[in-house]
Amino acid sequence: MELAGLIRSIPDFPKPGIVFKDITTLLGDAEAFSGVIEAWAERLRSRGVTRILAIEARGFIFGGALAHHLRVPLALARKPGKLPWLTIRESYSLEYGTDSLEIHRDAIVEGDRVAVVDDLLATGGTALAAIRLAEQLGGEVVDVGFLIELAFLSGRRKLERYPVESYIAYASEA
Amino acid sequence: MELAGLIRSIPDFPKPGIVFKDITTLLGDAEAFSGVIEAWAERLRSRGVTRILAIEARGFIFGGALAHHLRVPLALARKPGKLPWLTIRESYSLEYGTDSLEIHRDAIVEGDRVAVVDDLLATGGTALAAIRLAEQLGGEVVDVGFLIELAFLSGRRKLERYPVESYIAYASEA
Repeated sequence: MELAGLIRSIPDFPKPGIVFKDITTLLGDAEAFSGVIEAWAERLRSRGVTRILAIEARGFIFGGALAHHLRVPLALARKPGKLPWLTIRESYSLEYGTDSLEIHRDAIVEGDRVAVVDDLLATGGTALAAIRLAEQLGGEVVDVGFLIELAFLSGRRKLERYPVESYIAYASEA
Repeated sequence: MELAGLIRSIPDFPKPGIVFKDITTLLGDAEAFSGVIEAWAERLRSRGVTRILAIEARGFIFGGALAHHLRVPLALARKPGKLPWLTIRESYSLEYGTDSLEIHRDAIVEGDRVAVVDDLLATGGTALAAIRLAEQLGGEVVDVGFLIELAFLSGRRKLERYPVESYIAYASEA
């Protein structure tokens, strides 16, 4: 199965000039979704992952499946104000302004081998914030994984100290 | 394992007088999370489910794991403006004002046996909106499942035409 053929490109979403990569068509193909999860899980197992850190919101789809498949604990990185207990926060730059991610202070424990999980790597800002949060709690980030990578945005450069993996890479916007 | 013992109650979140049920402590217990997913999946299998409809955002955690475990297609119900392709929308009442959910027009196909999945049943408004969206696309909703049920809010009454299931039920606010 060609995974890229299961991604729907939506021109001018969410704004003119952006080609949005719609993963719902892949999620609607059960064999393709489970095939991705199995390959991803196998890699995380080989790296001795002890904790999945999934980034809101689409990262939860992959994080939930991976945590269950591997039987490792799942932690959530969320937008500010969503997590109800004690949190730590990390800000990152957007094209205009900044945004932030939070995790609970008990989401990760000292010595955890953490896999960061999200659907899409763009500029890498969100993933780097999640990595820093994991590290602040004493975790070691041993895998940063995505379904899709927008390679033309060079997110890997921002994450160059970490092992970055993706299943579908786009070399150009179109 | 007593599942309820893995849920953390947070007083006065997100506002005074509300006791928020924090599921992250259960997600951090891999055996408990996988145990829930296995029981939930077994029930969906017995009901002949052909499509999971997961509600944003925490429903994605359970929906992703269930879709992978059962190898059935996953559909997403999201807040307005998040889904990039053609959508249908359903509004529902909140304590103050209204909110809406959307799904893609190809998220469910005629004849699908749909399982609606979310983390928490409160008043049932969100779940009912998801059910109506599934039905508009020709799906039959054969299971409406939650990890937690706030039974004192009587959400089941709003969903009485459907088979509603939960794993942890709270009889009172405290």
